[in-house]
Amino acid sequence: MELHGGNIYKLQREGKKSVLDYSSNINPLGVPKKFKEKVIENFDILERYPDPDYVRLRESIGEYNDIKINNIVVGNGATEILFLYIKALKPKKAAIVSPTFAEYARALNSIDCEIIYYELKEENEFRLDIKTFISSLPRCDLVIICNPNNPTGVFLSLDEIKELNEGLKRRNIKLFLDEAFIEFIKDWKKVTALNLKDKNIFIMRALTKFFAIPGLRLGYGMAFDEDLLEKIKAYKEPWSVNSFAELAGQIMLWDKEYIEQSEKWIEEEKAWFYKELLKIDKIKVFKTTTNFILVKLLKGTSKEIKEKMIDKEILIRDAANFRGLNNKFIRLAIKNRENNKIVSRALSEILEKDI
Amino acid sequence: MELHGGNIYKLQREGKKSVLDYSSNINPLGVPKKFKEKVIENFDILERYPDPDYVRLRESIGEYNDIKINNIVVGNGATEILFLYIKALKPKKAAIVSPTFAEYARALNSIDCEIIYYELKEENEFRLDIKTFISSLPRCDLVIICNPNNPTGVFLSLDEIKELNEGLKRRNIKLFLDEAFIEFIKDWKKVTALNLKDKNIFIMRALTKFFAIPGLRLGYGMAFDEDLLEKIKAYKEPWSVNSFAELAGQIMLWDKEYIEQSEKWIEEEKAWFYKELLKIDKIKVFKTTTNFILVKLLKGTSKEIKEKMIDKEILIRDAANFRGLNNKFIRLAIKNRENNKIVSRALSEILEKDI
Repeated sequence: MELHGGNIYKLQREGKKSVLDYSSNINPLGVPKKFKEKVIENFDILERYPDPDYVRLRESIGEYNDIKINNIVVGNGATEILFLYIKALKPKKAAIVSPTFAEYARALNSIDCEIIYYELKEENEFRLDIKTFISSLPRCDLVIICNPNNPTGVFLSLDEIKELNEGLKRRNIKLFLDEAFIEFIKDWKKVTALNLKDKNIFIMRALTKFFAIPGLRLGYGMAFDEDLLEKIKAYKEPWSVNSFAELAGQIMLWDKEYIEQSEKWIEEEKAWFYKELLKIDKIKVFKTTTNFILVKLLKGTSKEIKEKMIDKEILIRDAANFRGLNNKFIRLAIKNRENNKIVSRALSEILEKDI
Repeated sequence: MELHGGNIYKLQREGKKSVLDYSSNINPLGVPKKFKEKVIENFDILERYPDPDYVRLRESIGEYNDIKINNIVVGNGATEILFLYIKALKPKKAAIVSPTFAEYARALNSIDCEIIYYELKEENEFRLDIKTFISSLPRCDLVIICNPNNPTGVFLSLDEIKELNEGLKRRNIKLFLDEAFIEFIKDWKKVTALNLKDKNIFIMRALTKFFAIPGLRLGYGMAFDEDLLEKIKAYKEPWSVNSFAELAGQIMLWDKEYIEQSEKWIEEEKAWFYKELLKIDKIKVFKTTTNFILVKLLKGTSKEIKEKMIDKEILIRDAANFRGLNNKFIRLAIKNRENNKIVSRALSEILEKDI
């Protein structure tokens, strides 16, 4: 199994030590410094089991999202939340709007749920047309959408999500929204589906991407369906969130300086990197709302480009194994200016000379 | 759900700030200092996903146990390992030798497995008689034993485990051994069931207790049944072990100084605390091989004693909810001399005056 397209550890074991990782979409500002200080100060929290009820952690997340703690479930990364939701809901048939993150299918497969892939079209810039979708969707129990979507970078507005959800409710279909990347959108609090406070919707988030802590593992789910939340709690293994992740959720969400710096960075680099990539011939660059960019190669294959980029010590995401894409697609993270320059130049060079 | 008998966070929320926790069995030497240094040095490992194959971590565990990395699976605490094993094996009927840790039943319930509780007898000092057990065991798929057993402190020798396993194999019954507390036994490497290298046995371990990191979450399983290990890998959610736990397994197992100090402490305090408790009237003290002691109250109830101990800012484990025990049993952790003194005195005072 190739996870996240590139496995940087495998490259390191092969002797590539200083690889620039553009395959995983992590905030280049790195782990917030305030968190590091707090970890050092409170190192002995490891000597106790985490709070099995995670009260303080859920209070912090609740305040951040302006909802009650009873509407929140926390997990060992978003992965645990996803698998718990699927176990609790037990859908018999579910639709995944794709191309998208592969773990949804893995979670559905783990309970032998039948999967319908609703494939977004390149000619529509991979944008979901709500009316067409609702009218053409076969009978099913659940629709899963990543919003903003990985790897396309497309974001469905709150109005679109509302229209979609109303259509699904009429047909008794639940809606699962993965908002792991939403914090990279300006004023995201105004556009999150949480504003709908709807029982039919489950929202998944993670601190992984925005706060640059994929190694720490902290995700959460938000829902207004009490029965579902009870079922999730019944399935949950105890103490799955480690004590440092428990602390992170109480520190990072309130780190105003880090959040402001990150917002400034993403606004600038999203625009800059996109424009820079547009200058390269032989690729098509898709507009993004978040911190990664989907690129279509008009020359060469994703595998070739990936290998040639590795020669330049850059790891990119070969997007060929996203269902609905093919070996013409790659995905690039957005990092800081210096590295974005290196990556766009490297890509440009390869396409002009080496392919 | 009352986890680990006492929930110290609940007490803290109620205003008890400086509670002495004798309800969870954690090495009082605390988190190894070398690990803290390494975490500070390598803090930015959080910015990457953990190695999905956990190669270095499994290499370290493999070397520590003198087995190959392919025989090892790592998890987010022993809890994940337990649940994965049960999901992969899918027993229809399983026997739990009890009183014991409650999570085995929870894991079996999660797949709707029928449970037989084989109850150890107080008159036998809660010791399993292998021959009687094998001959009286109904047809089933799996036997689960905690060795050394929580909460009784009884340890079955390698010869006993061998005899048991041979008997089970003849009847096509798998054996799951939880060795989470084995490192508190002197020369444990000579007595672990790992020495049998038998395909029928699955061994679970954790770094939680001996290395005082319940908050960090790191457990592992060892097996020689390749088909089973393949199934476990297929069920495993990716990146479940966080990067600091991944680091811990590479540092702590090689911290000779910490291990030697811990071995010295447990040898001394196990003997001292046991003798000290023997001096108290109105209780029966059970011999232990590990870092906790089961105590039977000959006066008062476990609930009363627990409450009176809380008044003295000491949290003990009311063992009444262990299946096969009753409201006459409590469990005490073994900590350092100073605190062991405080706890034995407090217990003595309560039994002599307050009950």
